[in-house]
Amino acid sequence: MLYIIGLGLGDETDITLKGLEAVRKCQKVYMEAYTSLLSFGLSTDGLSNLEKLYGKSITLADREMVEEKADDILSDSRDADVAFLIVGDPFGATTHTDLVVRAKKMGIEVKIVHNASVMNAIGICGLQLYRYGETVSIPFFTETWRPDSFYEKIEKNKEMGLHTLCLLDIRVKEPSLEALCRGKKIYEPSRYMTINTGIEQLLEIGQAREEPAYTEDTECVGFARLGSEDQMIVAGTMRQLQNIDFGAPLHCLVIVGKTHPLEEEMLDFYRCRT
Amino acid sequence: MLYIIGLGLGDETDITLKGLEAVRKCQKVYMEAYTSLLSFGLSTDGLSNLEKLYGKSITLADREMVEEKADDILSDSRDADVAFLIVGDPFGATTHTDLVVRAKKMGIEVKIVHNASVMNAIGICGLQLYRYGETVSIPFFTETWRPDSFYEKIEKNKEMGLHTLCLLDIRVKEPSLEALCRGKKIYEPSRYMTINTGIEQLLEIGQAREEPAYTEDTECVGFARLGSEDQMIVAGTMRQLQNIDFGAPLHCLVIVGKTHPLEEEMLDFYRCRT
Repeated sequence: MLYIIGLGLGDETDITLKGLEAVRKCQKVYMEAYTSLLSFGLSTDGLSNLEKLYGKSITLADREMVEEKADDILSDSRDADVAFLIVGDPFGATTHTDLVVRAKKMGIEVKIVHNASVMNAIGICGLQLYRYGETVSIPFFTETWRPDSFYEKIEKNKEMGLHTLCLLDIRVKEPSLEALCRGKKIYEPSRYMTINTGIEQLLEIGQAREEPAYTEDTECVGFARLGSEDQMIVAGTMRQLQNIDFGAPLHCLVIVGKTHPLEEEMLDFYRCRT
Repeated sequence: MLYIIGLGLGDETDITLKGLEAVRKCQKVYMEAYTSLLSFGLSTDGLSNLEKLYGKSITLADREMVEEKADDILSDSRDADVAFLIVGDPFGATTHTDLVVRAKKMGIEVKIVHNASVMNAIGICGLQLYRYGETVSIPFFTETWRPDSFYEKIEKNKEMGLHTLCLLDIRVKEPSLEALCRGKKIYEPSRYMTINTGIEQLLEIGQAREEPAYTEDTECVGFARLGSEDQMIVAGTMRQLQNIDFGAPLHCLVIVGKTHPLEEEMLDFYRCRT
């Protein structure tokens, strides 16, 4: 049996009782270090807390392992109970869908344990979840690669008065260009896009349009470390948020659409006073 | 302190360790019976399981109590630790935003404990969460009231190739018309819209249009009791799903937009074979 267990967003105590019970009976425990390394995984301490709580040692499964060694993980799951731990909810990222598809094709039973993810936890700012349009991803711009496919999606959402969740780029264990050329395993340092960089890139793309869907005066909500004890949530214009230091990752950003009075009342508690 | 604690979707073991720790130290525990009465609350057994696990007695807070007695709940929270338990995640429904706004205005500290909700748990069918457009609600039609504002939203989502989550109506403790006239507290029996009724209403509205955004042949995914041990997830055309008995509530429905190959591969495991 392969258990895919969501860990939630904050710390080791965000696992559900159902998830904890499952992980404790597994013979092998993997934890994804692919889409997000949060408070759980950034420090050795974080991981030890998890291992202490579970009474199990955990194998960090990074990008390479999930892609190259998926077969090993899966064949282990044939004869034993294997847990694959994921920050947030199991289906936040495509990679895990792929793992489930491969498991099911091999006839391995898969059990999902859900948890909170960014996709629903952003509800805390007061903007109603059913008033969000398509979610967009903002990738790190490079000198030569400045994709702007997110712009049209934000524009469409705006036209319909909907809020837009912008997921900000995460680069973990990316092979360096040099390494790619020489076939060596050398990695770029991890990078997590800040709200400031996200807004900078959004504005660069917006300012190139005649009637931009958003400007420096557009209302947004910035979230840092959502779901953690030290989470930071601030509502304000792009200009205001750009001047705020949101601290450690992960960050994400919501572009506010048309609001109802109750949404406004709730946003007020998070509003930037500068 | 007012703790607003998400219980997740399945049973009493879907609470997080963080949530359980919070509820155990509270002097008073309320549980919302407003937007959804699930496996947790439908039977006396369900509630007893919760009470046993928490070591606390729970006061069911129905629509009347949340709206009429919110002040009592809130003033309790001034001097003591009060837990307000919510099926799914705390911000699935507007009512809870309202409670938080009132608490914050009274200067009461509020702490949120997140959990899975329908909004992210639908990811289990393989359709990527960031490819959903605006969520719609399908209300029970009556002889004289057949609102169709959901239609345009589905149409817009379809145009953009996005999936649409359709939340199906729940009527719990609705005062009867007779009761309203006489000022008495008599309630209609609870009603939960099935996937079958949802599709029937969707098709009625669609068939009245010249180029409908969906027809009987449109691919959908039906979810019943999502997150529970006996959940049922079936992918198929509206016509196919209409002939399936999905059993006990709660139901919801996804209208499938444009899919990627990996989404298709995952949907295949749920596909209706008739």
